[in-house]
Amino acid sequence: MNFRIVLYVLGGLLRLLGLFMIIPLGVAYYYGESLTPFLISILVTTITGFLLLSYKTEEEWMRKEGFAIVALGWLAAAIFGAIPFIMDGISPLNAFFESMSGFTATGSTILTDIESHPKSILFWRGMIMWLGGMGIIVLFIAILPKLGVAGRQLFRAEMPGPTEEKLKPRVRETAKILWIIYFVISFLQVIALMLAGVSLYDSLNLMFSTVSCGGFSNYALSVGAFNSPHIEYITALFTFIAGVNFALYYRAMFVDKNTLLKDEEFRFYTALILAASGLLTFLLWRDFGTNLSDSFRLAIFHVISVMTTTGLVTTDFNLWSDSAKMILIIVGFIGGCAGSTGGGIKVVRVLILLKHSRMELFKALHPRAIKGVKLNSKNVPEEIVNSIVSFVVIYLLIFVSSALVLSVLGMDIITSFTASIATLGNVGPGMNVVGPMGSFDSIPLLGKLVLIANMWIGRLEVYTVILLFTPEFWKK
Amino acid sequence: MNFRIVLYVLGGLLRLLGLFMIIPLGVAYYYGESLTPFLISILVTTITGFLLLSYKTEEEWMRKEGFAIVALGWLAAAIFGAIPFIMDGISPLNAFFESMSGFTATGSTILTDIESHPKSILFWRGMIMWLGGMGIIVLFIAILPKLGVAGRQLFRAEMPGPTEEKLKPRVRETAKILWIIYFVISFLQVIALMLAGVSLYDSLNLMFSTVSCGGFSNYALSVGAFNSPHIEYITALFTFIAGVNFALYYRAMFVDKNTLLKDEEFRFYTALILAASGLLTFLLWRDFGTNLSDSFRLAIFHVISVMTTTGLVTTDFNLWSDSAKMILIIVGFIGGCAGSTGGGIKVVRVLILLKHSRMELFKALHPRAIKGVKLNSKNVPEEIVNSIVSFVVIYLLIFVSSALVLSVLGMDIITSFTASIATLGNVGPGMNVVGPMGSFDSIPLLGKLVLIANMWIGRLEVYTVILLFTPEFWKK
Ligand SMILES: [K+]
Ligand SMILES: [K+]
Repeated sequence: MNFRIVLYVLGGLLRLLGLFMIIPLGVAYYYGESLTPFLISILVTTITGFLLLSYKTEEEWMRKEGFAIVALGWLAAAIFGAIPFIMDGISPLNAFFESMSGFTATGSTILTDIESHPKSILFWRGMIMWLGGMGIIVLFIAILPKLGVAGRQLFRAEMPGPTEEKLKPRVRETAKILWIIYFVISFLQVIALMLAGVSLYDSLNLMFSTVSCGGFSNYALSVGAFNSPHIEYITALFTFIAGVNFALYYRAMFVDKNTLLKDEEFRFYTALILAASGLLTFLLWRDFGTNLSDSFRLAIFHVISVMTTTGLVTTDFNLWSDSAKMILIIVGFIGGCAGSTGGGIKVVRVLILLKHSRMELFKALHPRAIKGVKLNSKNVPEEIVNSIVSFVVIYLLIFVSSALVLSVLGMDIITSFTASIATLGNVGPGMNVVGPMGSFDSIPLLGKLVLIANMWIGRLEVYTVILLFTPEFWKK
Repeated sequence: MNFRIVLYVLGGLLRLLGLFMIIPLGVAYYYGESLTPFLISILVTTITGFLLLSYKTEEEWMRKEGFAIVALGWLAAAIFGAIPFIMDGISPLNAFFESMSGFTATGSTILTDIESHPKSILFWRGMIMWLGGMGIIVLFIAILPKLGVAGRQLFRAEMPGPTEEKLKPRVRETAKILWIIYFVISFLQVIALMLAGVSLYDSLNLMFSTVSCGGFSNYALSVGAFNSPHIEYITALFTFIAGVNFALYYRAMFVDKNTLLKDEEFRFYTALILAASGLLTFLLWRDFGTNLSDSFRLAIFHVISVMTTTGLVTTDFNLWSDSAKMILIIVGFIGGCAGSTGGGIKVVRVLILLKHSRMELFKALHPRAIKGVKLNSKNVPEEIVNSIVSFVVIYLLIFVSSALVLSVLGMDIITSFTASIATLGNVGPGMNVVGPMGSFDSIPLLGKLVLIANMWIGRLEVYTVILLFTPEFWKK
């Protein structure tokens, strides 16, 4: 392990983070709010960045350094990104929680009176989700495939061009394309929201939350605060878009117009959303007497929001009937598409596991048959199935363990399980105590630390973080 | 598919079932209860058996016939075994539920006033668990390995002698050995219970429930009715014994005395029980102020009972704190050892999945390393890992789907999830409405049918039943 390289790259990252902090500083200036929080944050972050940049080296980073950079990079961003919150009077642990929740685009919040905070602080809170979302896309499509992590070829296969060159130039080129797509989608949503009458400030914040699948809102009532079906449908549409593999958009534009319709993961993603929304519409109509069109509006918004692990809401789904809640729990487990900003297990993993099981059933009848799993007409190598399996096993193990810790700390079963999956799957809100109108503030200290770890681990596809905690990783 | 063979074997099975019904007839005679229920049951079952035996054939049964015989055999037993309950005045659906719960050694009950039923009926209710347990062992160690189902070699490896001969003589020989072990354990428990002052009738019934990991009790308070630590510890010990791979007992006696200690599954099973009992002891002590020795007694009994999926209780664990309940939920998912009478996912499957994940983590750091999963110092073939994966995927899919159905029918989330796993994992009691002192009677009709299917599917290792519902199975 070459520590110099890791520190050097982290230095560059912090310098960049310091630069980004100038934006909320401008917002604070515009609204006549205190500039101190951001001035101090910029100073601390930038100085630390430059100190680390002194470890300059010409060496290339390899596999191990790659894992360390990704995991520690997100951790460092969450730590330094928390400074503005601390300056705003939030306790360091809560500030760290909120910052990690932002950078991992989780959207679980410890704030209890959101509207009481300065606009610039809330802007920063939204912006870090957006930055996190940017990082996630690059991580998924450009970095993880190179590190050989869980389900790697799934994303690699979608990107054009050769993939066996040196890491650096390839990452930059891929990242650039993806960011342009991310920018364009962000821009379109802001325009759409402003045309619907939303202020620029609110449009930007809602866009941050949507395209990153983040889910923080500047309003306690979340998207419900706008009280507008029009805005809800715009948000739902862009949430749906954010939950799709971004590499597909590239292919659709430059390679094959029908990419989306041909892609099995996209089709399964859409089918699941429609099926779950249909059932949920029925349940809301049956259990609450809501008329069908309002039931559908509620259903499609929340199914998309929870399945993409965005976590924006238009109502307190914690008050729904248990069957309606169960649908949200199930889709939240599945998550968005690979290569999207969404979290969760990911649609493609679920799809491959289902195909794998169907094939095994077939083999039980025809034991001598040689048959593999296919995705988009291509064979899925055994090693991908293997890495998906271990991903899901470790994921479920962490899910159950952290739920157990929370319950030992005194939380009820539903709060424990949903807080665990809400953070590990980067969904945001859970149920009961941590429901959409609740807060993670009341969770005891140890519980908060576990949930912070969950967000970090879940966001970085489990392996990236877990590896850091194996003795094997630190061996020469 | 050769229907003749299937019908012929089912005929033999029903004739045998009719013979077994003579035992509760004797019990009814002894206690001066009505003989009619069993006379009619014997008549109907035996006549049907002889009718089917007319399909006599000299042909051997093959893979497909094997699946059909196992799945339909259990179904037929549950249907004909329900006749005495119907004669006792229980509704046909409830009688079928109770009978399936017995033959699958699930122990979920629809009875609400257990003590009001005749002794002979309750004896039959216990006896079918015991018969079911007998069937399970043979299914696991002798039949499934031959059919090539999920995790087959796991059990085959443990049995002595060659395994490639014709199916019939091999099954008989293996079955005989296993039944002797089953008889001996049953006998020892009855002796132990009688020495502790339990009546012969009660001893037999408690033994039926224990060695089969069944869990029905003749008392609403279950083992708590005896109000004796001595009897509780005897029951816990024999439950523990019933949760171990029976093939290991054979090996320990005739091949290698240290088999148990050397076996990784057994060690993991024991370690999990000790760890979960330790944590549960702490929680019961902390949350209820129960003294440590009573907490331990409660903890070890219920951890063993739920983990082996027996489901006997000495108290209403539904009243425990949520953290204590969560421990039971987690161990109930894991289940007993393969080749035991316990249900659930099975310890060895969980163990192999964990080993597999650890290996994948290692491979993420050393992508060129060639390394497989080992169990008991032997390599676990890829195909076993694959079959375990698809088993678990289908298992979880059924678990979630049936919970969803229950919740749509109006059950709360905890009842839905726990009723689903209690039946699919053949545990018996769930929580809330279906808790240890509750009953499955209040579940709506469709829900009961789903849960009956769960018991059937879960007991026969998923594949055996699921295959029957694939079009592939019925193709020429
Ligand atoms: K989120
Ligand atoms: K049971």
